[in-house]
Amino acid sequence: MTALANDTFLRALRRQPTEYTPLWLMRQAGRYLPEYNATRARAGSFLGLAQNPHFATEVTLQPLDRYALDAAILFSDILTVPDAMGLGLRFEAGEGPKFERPLRTEADVAALAVPDMDKLRYVFDAVREIRRALVRDGVQRVPLIGFSGSPWTLACYMVEGGGSDDYRTVKTMLYARPDLMHRILAVNAEAVAQYLGAQIDAGAQAVMVFDSWGGVLADGAFQEFSLAYSQRVVQTLKARADARAVPVILFTKGGGQWLEAMADTGADALGLDWTTNLGQARARVGSRVALQGNLDPNVLFAPPEAIAREVQRLLHSFGPVENGVGHVFNLGHGISQFTPPEHVSALVEAVHSHSRALHRGTAA
Amino acid sequence: MTALANDTFLRALRRQPTEYTPLWLMRQAGRYLPEYNATRARAGSFLGLAQNPHFATEVTLQPLDRYALDAAILFSDILTVPDAMGLGLRFEAGEGPKFERPLRTEADVAALAVPDMDKLRYVFDAVREIRRALVRDGVQRVPLIGFSGSPWTLACYMVEGGGSDDYRTVKTMLYARPDLMHRILAVNAEAVAQYLGAQIDAGAQAVMVFDSWGGVLADGAFQEFSLAYSQRVVQTLKARADARAVPVILFTKGGGQWLEAMADTGADALGLDWTTNLGQARARVGSRVALQGNLDPNVLFAPPEAIAREVQRLLHSFGPVENGVGHVFNLGHGISQFTPPEHVSALVEAVHSHSRALHRGTAA
Repeated sequence: MTALANDTFLRALRRQPTEYTPLWLMRQAGRYLPEYNATRARAGSFLGLAQNPHFATEVTLQPLDRYALDAAILFSDILTVPDAMGLGLRFEAGEGPKFERPLRTEADVAALAVPDMDKLRYVFDAVREIRRALVRDGVQRVPLIGFSGSPWTLACYMVEGGGSDDYRTVKTMLYARPDLMHRILAVNAEAVAQYLGAQIDAGAQAVMVFDSWGGVLADGAFQEFSLAYSQRVVQTLKARADARAVPVILFTKGGGQWLEAMADTGADALGLDWTTNLGQARARVGSRVALQGNLDPNVLFAPPEAIAREVQRLLHSFGPVENGVGHVFNLGHGISQFTPPEHVSALVEAVHSHSRALHRGTAA
Repeated sequence: MTALANDTFLRALRRQPTEYTPLWLMRQAGRYLPEYNATRARAGSFLGLAQNPHFATEVTLQPLDRYALDAAILFSDILTVPDAMGLGLRFEAGEGPKFERPLRTEADVAALAVPDMDKLRYVFDAVREIRRALVRDGVQRVPLIGFSGSPWTLACYMVEGGGSDDYRTVKTMLYARPDLMHRILAVNAEAVAQYLGAQIDAGAQAVMVFDSWGGVLADGAFQEFSLAYSQRVVQTLKARADARAVPVILFTKGGGQWLEAMADTGADALGLDWTTNLGQARARVGSRVALQGNLDPNVLFAPPEAIAREVQRLLHSFGPVENGVGHVFNLGHGISQFTPPEHVSALVEAVHSHSRALHRGTAA
């Protein structure tokens, strides 16, 4: 085991004392960085980038070389698992992801199966290679986060065949044929649990479940079709022998009304989008889970002094630094491709310097 | 004053006893109805339809002739007010609304002013004509609802110049130049208050403020840039001599975390999207305001028996029928253009018949 030079992120997730509020950014390796675009150009395509462990390692480390971020996150695509299930993932220029063989009929659903994890070896190879690349002077710079889409979020893409404005196709199946939807979700939950387990085996030191589309569901439907299956994933991971060492973060975009139920899944931390008040979230669930979030990514279009003001407001909204609570700073959603990279420097500086002042004088 | 044949909707908004749960549907006069599409074809364009009081009256009444709905809502566009401000509204085939002259510079914002309400006379003429057309056998069939976009929602379109995926332009102004954003919102609030006041003068018997994009704001920004200005509108209307007679409904899509603050505006009722649990909303604010909502419009793609099941679930989630609380059934968002019209019949039948059973035996 290589020692961690900076374990602030893992300590915050475990609600242990830290010297400052750690931060990383969803989609921190991405198109707002010129060096990312250069690597992507060499890779030839997005899938060429995501499926090649060397390129994935290169772009995973790029934001760490620019900014004092407290965690790395595996660079990968959210749709690797359904692609391994044989749905035929492709990206066309100017469009989002598409599946060549979406799930539309009873026969499509009956044929769905948990994929052989060997088809996803390129992901686990990337995890291993990133772990090695994170070592500098004999110590690992920051921890590595693995991730997956939630069973429901994967199902949205698998049934719609791509992105959607209204989720009409997947919701029609949900309301008209709940039996088919439950079968898809059961397969997805098992696949995601195996996938994240294999990422942990390969070296991921925390994992995050992205329930990006849980928030489009009605109250009631969310609990039945999204949360119940995310919970299966969390509970499978928390049954592992290394569960204490590897925190699980559950993020539902638009899930602010369901935080208590999300905390009941057994996740170690909840990701929050920018609509949730951090202090209120802490009052509701903060003694049971750490909280991660939740700056509006659009704040990064404002000048550095406005960014610093919003960072201070957010850190103060979390409330006093105390043992037994944990906050990981992040955006409330992925960083925009149009973000000026120098504004991210202003963000990182504001989070670290202001939170260090807030943490000073507390037990550490 | 012509008597109302059916005032169930107004009684529910005033939290008075009703024999059943009244319902209407956001966007009930719309593209899912073949007769609407026929009228629109005769009008030549969407604006030709919305700006002609005769056509607007015709389409407003169409859903009432098909379904036993408990209210009519003025057919109009949400962007009439900024159009009257001179921003140049146009609709291009296959695209949403666009403004030819969006607000981008300090000079654009400085030049913005409350429009002469005479430019919106076609709207008030439509209200008057619809009121007349609603009279059958000497009584008015159902009440007429007037509406406007909220100050913030109008500002989104006015600054973005149309719809948006990420609200980057308007949020950049909000965070970088809050002074400009506040000026736009102050002008919009005054304009919307005058606009809704004139609709009431023309005969609207309830009004609804559609804060369709309030839910894209961060906690904190919502209260400062959306709610504060919706509150100005509500308070101006509630200062009128006829305020008791004309209920005001405030609907923020994605606003489920902010219901207490929304109730504090003085609105008579809150519109809810489908992510909010009705019973929990009632526990939080239901003795102060009526609640309107909140079926996922996608339920209407399922067969009638599934629609009836979801209706029952929703009515039960509101909890026991009691004096001093009020529920108006609605969708959580506008009805989809792809909805089968016969499924709306199933919805109306399910709401009326099931809620009548729930109301039986209560004080009325």
